[in-house]
Amino acid sequence: MNSFGRLFRISIFGESHGKSVGIVIDGCPAGIPLKTEDFEADFSRRRSGGIGTTPRREPDIPRIMSGLFDGYTTGAPITIVFENTSARPGDYSRLVDFPRPGHADFTASRKFGGYQDYRGGGHFSGRLTLGLVAAGVIARKIILPAEVTAFLTEAGGSSDIEGAVNRAVEEQDSIGGIVECRISGVPVGLGEPFFDSVESVMSHLVFSIPAIKGIEFGSGFRAAKMKGSEHNDNIVGTDGTTETNHAGGINGGITNGNEVLFRVAVKPTSSTHQSQQTMNFRTGKVETLKIEGRHDTCIALRVPVVLEAAAAVVMADLMLQSQAVARVNKPKFV
Amino acid sequence: MNSFGRLFRISIFGESHGKSVGIVIDGCPAGIPLKTEDFEADFSRRRSGGIGTTPRREPDIPRIMSGLFDGYTTGAPITIVFENTSARPGDYSRLVDFPRPGHADFTASRKFGGYQDYRGGGHFSGRLTLGLVAAGVIARKIILPAEVTAFLTEAGGSSDIEGAVNRAVEEQDSIGGIVECRISGVPVGLGEPFFDSVESVMSHLVFSIPAIKGIEFGSGFRAAKMKGSEHNDNIVGTDGTTETNHAGGINGGITNGNEVLFRVAVKPTSSTHQSQQTMNFRTGKVETLKIEGRHDTCIALRVPVVLEAAAAVVMADLMLQSQAVARVNKPKFV
Amino acid sequence: MNSFGRLFRISIFGESHGKSVGIVIDGCPAGIPLKTEDFEADFSRRRSGGIGTTPRREPDIPRIMSGLFDGYTTGAPITIVFENTSARPGDYSRLVDFPRPGHADFTASRKFGGYQDYRGGGHFSGRLTLGLVAAGVIARKIILPAEVTAFLTEAGGSSDIEGAVNRAVEEQDSIGGIVECRISGVPVGLGEPFFDSVESVMSHLVFSIPAIKGIEFGSGFRAAKMKGSEHNDNIVGTDGTTETNHAGGINGGITNGNEVLFRVAVKPTSSTHQSQQTMNFRTGKVETLKIEGRHDTCIALRVPVVLEAAAAVVMADLMLQSQAVARVNKPKFV
Amino acid sequence: MNSFGRLFRISIFGESHGKSVGIVIDGCPAGIPLKTEDFEADFSRRRSGGIGTTPRREPDIPRIMSGLFDGYTTGAPITIVFENTSARPGDYSRLVDFPRPGHADFTASRKFGGYQDYRGGGHFSGRLTLGLVAAGVIARKIILPAEVTAFLTEAGGSSDIEGAVNRAVEEQDSIGGIVECRISGVPVGLGEPFFDSVESVMSHLVFSIPAIKGIEFGSGFRAAKMKGSEHNDNIVGTDGTTETNHAGGINGGITNGNEVLFRVAVKPTSSTHQSQQTMNFRTGKVETLKIEGRHDTCIALRVPVVLEAAAAVVMADLMLQSQAVARVNKPKFV
Repeated sequence: MNSFGRLFRISIFGESHGKSVGIVIDGCPAGIPLKTEDFEADFSRRRSGGIGTTPRREPDIPRIMSGLFDGYTTGAPITIVFENTSARPGDYSRLVDFPRPGHADFTASRKFGGYQDYRGGGHFSGRLTLGLVAAGVIARKIILPAEVTAFLTEAGGSSDIEGAVNRAVEEQDSIGGIVECRISGVPVGLGEPFFDSVESVMSHLVFSIPAIKGIEFGSGFRAAKMKGSEHNDNIVGTDGTTETNHAGGINGGITNGNEVLFRVAVKPTSSTHQSQQTMNFRTGKVETLKIEGRHDTCIALRVPVVLEAAAAVVMADLMLQSQAVARVNKPKFV
Repeated sequence: MNSFGRLFRISIFGESHGKSVGIVIDGCPAGIPLKTEDFEADFSRRRSGGIGTTPRREPDIPRIMSGLFDGYTTGAPITIVFENTSARPGDYSRLVDFPRPGHADFTASRKFGGYQDYRGGGHFSGRLTLGLVAAGVIARKIILPAEVTAFLTEAGGSSDIEGAVNRAVEEQDSIGGIVECRISGVPVGLGEPFFDSVESVMSHLVFSIPAIKGIEFGSGFRAAKMKGSEHNDNIVGTDGTTETNHAGGINGGITNGNEVLFRVAVKPTSSTHQSQQTMNFRTGKVETLKIEGRHDTCIALRVPVVLEAAAAVVMADLMLQSQAVARVNKPKFV
Repeated sequence: MNSFGRLFRISIFGESHGKSVGIVIDGCPAGIPLKTEDFEADFSRRRSGGIGTTPRREPDIPRIMSGLFDGYTTGAPITIVFENTSARPGDYSRLVDFPRPGHADFTASRKFGGYQDYRGGGHFSGRLTLGLVAAGVIARKIILPAEVTAFLTEAGGSSDIEGAVNRAVEEQDSIGGIVECRISGVPVGLGEPFFDSVESVMSHLVFSIPAIKGIEFGSGFRAAKMKGSEHNDNIVGTDGTTETNHAGGINGGITNGNEVLFRVAVKPTSSTHQSQQTMNFRTGKVETLKIEGRHDTCIALRVPVVLEAAAAVVMADLMLQSQAVARVNKPKFV
Repeated sequence: MNSFGRLFRISIFGESHGKSVGIVIDGCPAGIPLKTEDFEADFSRRRSGGIGTTPRREPDIPRIMSGLFDGYTTGAPITIVFENTSARPGDYSRLVDFPRPGHADFTASRKFGGYQDYRGGGHFSGRLTLGLVAAGVIARKIILPAEVTAFLTEAGGSSDIEGAVNRAVEEQDSIGGIVECRISGVPVGLGEPFFDSVESVMSHLVFSIPAIKGIEFGSGFRAAKMKGSEHNDNIVGTDGTTETNHAGGINGGITNGNEVLFRVAVKPTSSTHQSQQTMNFRTGKVETLKIEGRHDTCIALRVPVVLEAAAAVVMADLMLQSQAVARVNKPKFV
């Protein structure tokens, strides 16, 4: 399933070393101002790396193929295509036979009967997140004045992130990290329980970002060690203001007006330069694999902008849904 | 959104102190043997409590209103209704004015304009999980020989679970816990990335269980502190067998044949007997609230069977989906 | 798939001679006044028959199992169950072996491997429409001031409907008919092309009503014989008012403010008392079947209220959707 | 909603005079051989016109941007883009002020607040069907050995189609027509009632084709004038073979193994060269409009290949769904 969302819907496509990656955004309201330059800041954050990120450099030029007219969204689907220019499929020719540990090579091969585009992970590549970031740029405009910010809080278990990355580069190994995301200015009442709680919909989209292996809202796993009297957020204002925000801005799956707060665990990049064991599809033997080529030492460095995009997309969809159901009758209480 | 699933679809309904709770299960294949007694073991696990669980006792008799004929599922929707017999709405009459901290009272009231059934949390009550457990009983039959098991690994931060609960009862407070879930016998190839990765779909449903605030797959948050060379699961067998299972049985969002493994964080029961501050909807003032009545000291004690049900429902849906897409052409590789 | 709708969603269940039929309505806005008596007028229209309708008489008592509190909808799913009291399963015992021509007996048996509840058509019975009519009663309240009216315009090819039915009763045969539906007071702008044009969504739901075999909007099949200059509706008012309504109130799949108008073809009741040929599942031979028991001579007589319900459900869903997408930015033109 | 389908899902995008039109096809099984030339025959049928079709000539070159590798589908989404090369936006500059009768100009303007791309109908143009035809080419491969054929049976009310079109060209007017579609080789058991009957799903997609205003299955509207004893298809073979096919191959919303047969009514092309009345958005006055430019005299001439594509897409989706639900248990009867 390569589509996500109920009213604000995204459909992702493409492969790392194929012709392109891209996204179709359907259900975007008409009249949102949009121009190509709007994407540049987030694309740059995603691309940029500094130490620990892959040297693959592509201009990431968004070609808006539909849905934009005279500088505004039209209400029709917005299609954005990124043609792959720096793809070097040759790098991967050997990998057709060796599923790389930690990657989708083995599972995709079994699922798709060997027909998948295996080059650089194909459809499973982190390059696909470029489309998601593009959708996020648009979603951010819809959810205003709400705003999303994410940042890396630790890498390789350390809050000295630069140091941790440098060490990993030296060791020719890879490391993971923790990324925290905060959404401010969120209206009360977003979320559609029983099954579309904010946590449900957010985690659904977030776990489609490659390398994410955990998510927690508010106090999260620490909450499991707390007492109810500690964890509950006392309501101290008649607008629902609370003393603390252990709930991460969500009660019963619905936003309570506080900052929505969650953290994700990013596993270490699967492509490490260390030797690993794997099978050979062709010979049916287990062999030693050493992965060459360009890779991120710490993929978590690039996650923040992608996570922000995911969060904005979810918020945009929930906001549009909340508008639909809210207005038939007068509230009983105000 | 009170429905979940693509092919195996569940629709939940009901309120804690209304006429009933229940579920409709659509897309269940015909020909599955089913009788009322099949539900009893799981209902009993959910109900049973021992120390730390609410003394509310209902027989939980499933009335199968449709979809069953001559002892087998028919392919038509299976509707199961549980009439509420032990409901004591009077207990909650005072709560219409006081949103209980940690509960959905405030957010639901704002979202639904005050029209929600507030008694005992109404549609947001843990009692709704009875329908989910019922769906799990049926889903377990579909996914055979795969099997799901979940268990509480710690409560209140301690692995001496009984001791922790006893202490909390004495202190008139509530505690949370960690529940681990394992699915064995899973075929390779389940999961529908990009957006319906196993982690995405599983977390979506799991976060609709009340009180869950975190989820992690495989090594999860610990993965963020590991190196790639440690975290990657070396492939040591030509059927894809791996040395370790840090990935929790999932690569690229698709099952790899290993045990699927995840853990959830359960917050402490929101209803603690300690005094708390909250607003009064009617007077517009902040007041002190002391919650009386019957409540679970440690709701996490009841989560395992509900988590198993959620996991089985997700697996059933993904298995049916994998059957649909797999069979058109011959695999390129075998 | 026993669910329909994007925001206003209905899930139908039940069997003709099983324990019950019913419906779950999800996404209904909170705060709509609703009481059991509201259903009676439409249930009575559906039930009533006069000449040509089956003598099966059931009280059709709706049990509202969830989603209603203090006389108003709560925003949670509304579940309505109708227990079958007049079911006489014995009537159908012989039919397990003989698929009745025109019915779903053969196709359902093949699709569900023989596990379907075959009694009286089981899940394929017209009795299922009772739930749809109930949903229609609620949908009508949502779409106000828009109103839906449907009526039989001909039966058995004749506009003397009573005469046609009497003749068919005498001949111990069954007849079909044409039902026309009009929706007045429809706002401009409903419909979600490309794929969810008003015609698309309406026909989708309408063709789930048993016995419908054709639908046309506006001039419909007559349009195929017209010239563009005749068929186009000249716009003669600056609010978009048109001179004629050949388009049936829909341009480009979106309502234009005119009455939405469509007609459906209802086939003759499949259960005729005339002898027919069919196979015997058990013996594998072709035999002659004579259907006994109570049946409608002209099922079309009962279609209007069901068609109104379907139309109201579709309009409610499209209205809620139109609220979601309309409000982000200022219109360019007013 | 610009997506359609449950397992075989299409997402359409583009505008008549924008940068491109295209489609994303998700859920296509891996391993289907596909090359650019496969599209040419159907594109040529859609484009070709002869008398009565617009002289707009574009090469219709499909750029496959994703989902294809080494000549086979990969299981990932297939994106096909058609860049618009012959677009002459200048032709339409005047139409921003005048909604053309019969077109979506007025309704789209109201729905999207004036932000829609109005040039040549924008997203509402028949040019969008190019993507649908492309999806049909792929769907046809999935449903083999089932095959779809559609043909124009009358134009302007006459079976002398060429004569009718010539006459309309002389009169500078436009005409409609009737198109019949037949699907042979259909397996028994496709269709997912209650709501996803074959008729429901087929009509849903068919009514998204511009200019379709009616659909009937089997005897359709004639069935409304028949007796049950005439209309029922006697079952004369123990494989379910019937004597006649009044039902159009569908009983109870499920295919019965006969040819699936339906007919659609195509309205006359809305762009006629005759003078018409319409409003002026800018001046707020009613004025006379004379449409210039290139247009189809009889759009129905181009409908057959589009209708075939729609039918193939629906069949592909229903076939994949039927595979998912069929295989858990042994049939009771064989």
